[in-house]
Amino acid sequence: MTDDNGVSATAHPEPSEQVRILLSVPARELAAMFPADTRSALDELGEVVVAEPGELADTTAFRATLSGVHVAVTAWGFPTLDATRLADAPELRFVMHAASSLRSVTSDDFWAAGIPISQAGAAMAPAVAELSLAFTMSLLRRTQRTDHALRSGGDWWEAREVPRAREIRGSRIGVIGASRTGRQYIDLVTALGADVTVYDPYLPAGDPLHAIQGGLHDLLRECEVLALHAPATPETRGMLGAAELSLLRDGALVVNTARAELLDADALYAEVASGRLDAALDVFEVEPLDDRWRALPNVLVTPHLGGATVESRRRAGLIVVDEIRRFLAGRPLQYALTRIDVERMG
Amino acid sequence: MTDDNGVSATAHPEPSEQVRILLSVPARELAAMFPADTRSALDELGEVVVAEPGELADTTAFRATLSGVHVAVTAWGFPTLDATRLADAPELRFVMHAASSLRSVTSDDFWAAGIPISQAGAAMAPAVAELSLAFTMSLLRRTQRTDHALRSGGDWWEAREVPRAREIRGSRIGVIGASRTGRQYIDLVTALGADVTVYDPYLPAGDPLHAIQGGLHDLLRECEVLALHAPATPETRGMLGAAELSLLRDGALVVNTARAELLDADALYAEVASGRLDAALDVFEVEPLDDRWRALPNVLVTPHLGGATVESRRRAGLIVVDEIRRFLAGRPLQYALTRIDVERMG
Repeated sequence: MTDDNGVSATAHPEPSEQVRILLSVPARELAAMFPADTRSALDELGEVVVAEPGELADTTAFRATLSGVHVAVTAWGFPTLDATRLADAPELRFVMHAASSLRSVTSDDFWAAGIPISQAGAAMAPAVAELSLAFTMSLLRRTQRTDHALRSGGDWWEAREVPRAREIRGSRIGVIGASRTGRQYIDLVTALGADVTVYDPYLPAGDPLHAIQGGLHDLLRECEVLALHAPATPETRGMLGAAELSLLRDGALVVNTARAELLDADALYAEVASGRLDAALDVFEVEPLDDRWRALPNVLVTPHLGGATVESRRRAGLIVVDEIRRFLAGRPLQYALTRIDVERMG
Repeated sequence: MTDDNGVSATAHPEPSEQVRILLSVPARELAAMFPADTRSALDELGEVVVAEPGELADTTAFRATLSGVHVAVTAWGFPTLDATRLADAPELRFVMHAASSLRSVTSDDFWAAGIPISQAGAAMAPAVAELSLAFTMSLLRRTQRTDHALRSGGDWWEAREVPRAREIRGSRIGVIGASRTGRQYIDLVTALGADVTVYDPYLPAGDPLHAIQGGLHDLLRECEVLALHAPATPETRGMLGAAELSLLRDGALVVNTARAELLDADALYAEVASGRLDAALDVFEVEPLDDRWRALPNVLVTPHLGGATVESRRRAGLIVVDEIRRFLAGRPLQYALTRIDVERMG
């Protein structure tokens, strides 16, 4: 490995002998991300050192492990790369984050150091989009209401007295956020015959989604399902408060596999508790989630597992290998992010 | 209306004055099936008399209501048309069943009388197929396990320790029964990227599903999701007993929106209670369902609502009007069934 830095790093003639790669992914995810074939491909790129992210919180362990590392594969629980940490990792040339959000890994010091960083968020988008579809179909059929009624010993005939189920074909779905996940969700529900409107003030010129774009208030008034796929940024935080939620029709369905911060949690709670809206939520303002959500019969709750599938973990491993290969070969990275990107992505 | 009977009935010059149509659908479904436009279309075909099916259990009420009726639109709860009932409906020329199963309406006497009968089961197929898809996606994501764990006060981190979720794209789905519903389910999951095998010993020659047909045992061994879409007939009852279920992989998912009789209920219960299989069930051997199913954390239960959507009810009303129009015009019926058809359909 040369002293070249940034995305223009040139190929090293014998990378396997001299490049040192730290693989720091929690044990359970490690096996899922790096099955034998993916791990072999990584081993071909350099000498791989494995360390549990949690164990690197200790500064001595961090220094000992990172001292000769050129490429760090990071994930949930990896320490924040601040000035002290960076000083303890003097050879670090590239950070490949195997998860999605870079917030916990990066810092002002990190960005100032100019070390390129990529993330494997693309691996998770299909998983999150599919969970959002699972939520959508469950809510349309009110299976959460009937299942909860029967499980709590409710009468069979009373359990049938839910608001009449709807089919996804022909349903009106409003999507907030034309993110990678939002786009994949739109593809899925469109394939099933839903009629989609999307709200995203930042659609690039020429984007095909312009054809189904709508204003936020019209979208809220017209949709039967509201699916959130926007990042949490200063602009989007709390964008759906009591006033916005009140625009939804009676019986509308709210799907959130994105970020809890998009909604005013108390306003959503009030609407769901009254029974006017139903919701399926994978993300919560406070995680572990508040007890109040667990008691509502018309809400489906899951513990922030949107991105966690067998397939998404495998894809993440493949992205990690491919991205490191690109970096070492001096080819353009596919998923490099700048500080500005990260701020915009939330 | 002439005295012609059977599907060759000829058009009547002034049907609205002389054809008498009984519309006997439970009140709640009546409004769903016959919104104003559909009802107007029915009114154009004859004089429509409305009667709640339950009230016709009384023989005097039945006789008084049916005496001059030429066409009976029946549904859940309509009395069985046996010799006595038929004698009380001397003008009856056509029965249009607005629901699916004809068992409760027909009898030996009915079939002997040669009165044509149609049903609106086609209206429900998309609804059942979509519920089957909702179940499939929920089980793949194990949302029933996580939701039940959180709702019962379980720890957030423990709730996350479910078997790793799977995506539908690339999943192996075994479908038993190339019924109307089975075919629509196959279309839906194929559109989402699933890899489907179907088992149905009665696929007609030239059926495109031959391309994805498999033997029952191979299908059971290989599938990750088993979706049932066969009718309950003497041949299919109990076709999945303990031996067949034991062929499923550990962690396989069973979706049943068809008929409980296809499975040995105790064998399924044992496999689900052990945690080896997860299941989502809309139909039960005994309905209202047995308490034992309500207690299992890894089963999603709904109260036999597969066919009940806003859209399926609307479609049923449209089929009823179209089929009566065909009958009165002497055109071929689209959904006429013979006794043999009904036995095969279960």
